[in-house]
Amino acid sequence: MHASVRATYTPDVLGDVGAFGALYRSPGAAGQVLVSSTDSVGTKVKLAIALGRHEGIGRDLVHHCINDILTLGARPLFFLDYLGLGRLVPQTVAEIVGGLAEACRQHGVALIGGETAELPDLYACDDYDLAGFIVGVVAEHEIVDGHAVRAGDVVIGLPSDGLHTNGYTLARRVFAASDLSAYIPALGGRLGDELLRPHRCYLPEVGPLLGRGLIKGMAHITGGGLPGNLPRALPAGLGVALDQEAWAVPPIFRLIEETGAVPRAEMYRVFNMGIGFALVCAPASRDEIVSAVAGARVIGRVVRCPAGERVVGLP
Amino acid sequence: MHASVRATYTPDVLGDVGAFGALYRSPGAAGQVLVSSTDSVGTKVKLAIALGRHEGIGRDLVHHCINDILTLGARPLFFLDYLGLGRLVPQTVAEIVGGLAEACRQHGVALIGGETAELPDLYACDDYDLAGFIVGVVAEHEIVDGHAVRAGDVVIGLPSDGLHTNGYTLARRVFAASDLSAYIPALGGRLGDELLRPHRCYLPEVGPLLGRGLIKGMAHITGGGLPGNLPRALPAGLGVALDQEAWAVPPIFRLIEETGAVPRAEMYRVFNMGIGFALVCAPASRDEIVSAVAGARVIGRVVRCPAGERVVGLP
Repeated sequence: MHASVRATYTPDVLGDVGAFGALYRSPGAAGQVLVSSTDSVGTKVKLAIALGRHEGIGRDLVHHCINDILTLGARPLFFLDYLGLGRLVPQTVAEIVGGLAEACRQHGVALIGGETAELPDLYACDDYDLAGFIVGVVAEHEIVDGHAVRAGDVVIGLPSDGLHTNGYTLARRVFAASDLSAYIPALGGRLGDELLRPHRCYLPEVGPLLGRGLIKGMAHITGGGLPGNLPRALPAGLGVALDQEAWAVPPIFRLIEETGAVPRAEMYRVFNMGIGFALVCAPASRDEIVSAVAGARVIGRVVRCPAGERVVGLP
Repeated sequence: MHASVRATYTPDVLGDVGAFGALYRSPGAAGQVLVSSTDSVGTKVKLAIALGRHEGIGRDLVHHCINDILTLGARPLFFLDYLGLGRLVPQTVAEIVGGLAEACRQHGVALIGGETAELPDLYACDDYDLAGFIVGVVAEHEIVDGHAVRAGDVVIGLPSDGLHTNGYTLARRVFAASDLSAYIPALGGRLGDELLRPHRCYLPEVGPLLGRGLIKGMAHITGGGLPGNLPRALPAGLGVALDQEAWAVPPIFRLIEETGAVPRAEMYRVFNMGIGFALVCAPASRDEIVSAVAGARVIGRVVRCPAGERVVGLP
């Protein structure tokens, strides 16, 4: 396990595993800003536990955290994890940390610290909770915070890979009586595999666009869905008119809706519905972004919105 | 709650609550190193839940994390928390976050981010787990990592305030049948109050000693006690000969030992036994440190230790 963690070390990591704190050389240039975030994977862990497959959970968490700070234009530097569990099963911990380490290594993020706590009074035997902490960096003048967004700007959506890490409490309720190993023709695969698909990381696609003045605002579509997250990319007084026809909602969301008789409006507030990340840009930058990022498509435009719902055009 | 969090903001915090990531101006000078750590308060939360008193838990976590990075010579910059809970009770969350914020404010740490996740499938109704993530800074040439420690150096102990955040699984088992509201003459107070005493923060006492070349190594006495943590302040091949007579073990530890018939050797491996933090220095620096820090006393000396137990002199 130490080897997979050390494989993530970049030249800016000092010291080694085992100290009370992790050392990372601070970005030396003036005008740099550290961007940090923390998150967990929520009850997706319950599915991983039920299926005995934990490697993807670590990957989910790293990708989620990278995407969060990416919305501000930041590139990730280092990551720490907190793992609380009811019983320390070495194989499970190795799978989780192996997934974290592999995702970190792929994206150039140093996994420099973590804490594993065996807490049988808090967690049921095989249960665990996993939280991640990420720190990245962006030049202050390149921070993307939506301040320059204007009515008429374009909203570009990037496709998600399934549910990512949100909506699992509802999804698990809907499929409580379902066989997770069943092949579902509409999904082209097994239900359990579809539900455990890792959270997509948008850094490889969005990273090359950063620092070029193309992107005015970004949103990671997590809990709250499009209506809850798109407004976070915009200044007050602006909203988004979405074009529902612009993208096809993936089959897994239709299956959840039908199986659970979930109202469509609730579906859009709980799940990403096929759009995992969104960019806001001027109309003049649209074609350059859409042609650079595989799967990117215009999903709406920015509109004036003095009050009320800030995202319109959804069911 | 937002007000108490904003009260922790230092001039280096950019932006405001609600973004996908938290912004903190990077230390501008060259040669600075970011020092980070993550930890939880373990099953001390179960006591807080049983007694319905959560403010101290936030303080515990912040102090624990500050102490961890302090061992490397770092001063804290910013903090994020992860709170997973079975049921979101606003009063409980406000107490926890209020405690976090107040401790951060007192020590000049910006509480710039956090995640609160309601996970009824993972946590029992009133249960929660709380993890913290801290980032601090130290000049690279002022990192304290024990490399200069030599045989004959002095080990100075600083007093703890009770159990801090370690050993609660054992302590709770020992007192499972005890009345937490009972006044215990030997403690001079109620059992529950003693067990919930906040983790002491050593930054105010040790901070003024940093950067003066006085301290060669430091250890935060957490899980594993003195035998588990003192070696972390030393290079390989060195150990510590402790003088058990140098400090009085506080009554709470004697009470745990007697009530639970816990073997004394186990007590020293599980609890801090009255020493919460330790400094290693050359004999010539001893008097300056001991006179500068209230309660500090020499508790042992560094000895050669080619193999075997690295901490000797304990029961």
